[in-house]
Amino acid sequence: MKQDGKTCPIARAATIIGSRWTAQILRELINNGARRFQELQESLAGIPPNTLSSRLKMLEESGIVKREIYETRPPRAEYELTAKGRKMSAIIAAMRDWGERYG
Amino acid sequence: MKQDGKTCPIARAATIIGSRWTAQILRELINNGARRFQELQESLAGIPPNTLSSRLKMLEESGIVKREIYETRPPRAEYELTAKGRKMSAIIAAMRDWGERYG
Repeated sequence: MKQDGKTCPIARAATIIGSRWTAQILRELINNGARRFQELQESLAGIPPNTLSSRLKMLEESGIVKREIYETRPPRAEYELTAKGRKMSAIIAAMRDWGERYG
Repeated sequence: MKQDGKTCPIARAATIIGSRWTAQILRELINNGARRFQELQESLAGIPPNTLSSRLKMLEESGIVKREIYETRPPRAEYELTAKGRKMSAIIAAMRDWGERYG
């Protein structure tokens, strides 16, 4: 099977999952639904804020995460998975199973 | 759930899957069994030989891939998955499903 990075579906998923912290951000959103930036940062102990910010931006641009603004006072922004993002939960679950047993 | 990269099983799986080309190398070994270096390079059109070499080394050191030497003349080396490596196929399958539909 000859497939370059552009056409292989596995490579497309790997591009998303592969960046450090991305799988853990997705885990947080799968487990908890909508999350504020600050909440994500607290759950992912050790993530630099700049990294969290750039990962969320990448996930938004990929259509995996959406940012919702709520008109509270002060307004607050929350991140949540899109339908496309929620479908990644099977990948995250398989990664968890493997990591618990063999990682 | 507070978990850093060392204790989170998802992060441990992401460390393996995350490097560019790694998921595709695993796909080749899952689909084809034992593979020679040259065969992997031909299947993964576009992978630089140095990258293939360093990914295989990382996968060997992680206990996912083993290198077998066959006493043919000339001797030949083949790479294949260990039991731990074969258990990653559920992750790769989930990545393929997602990538085909949404990637």
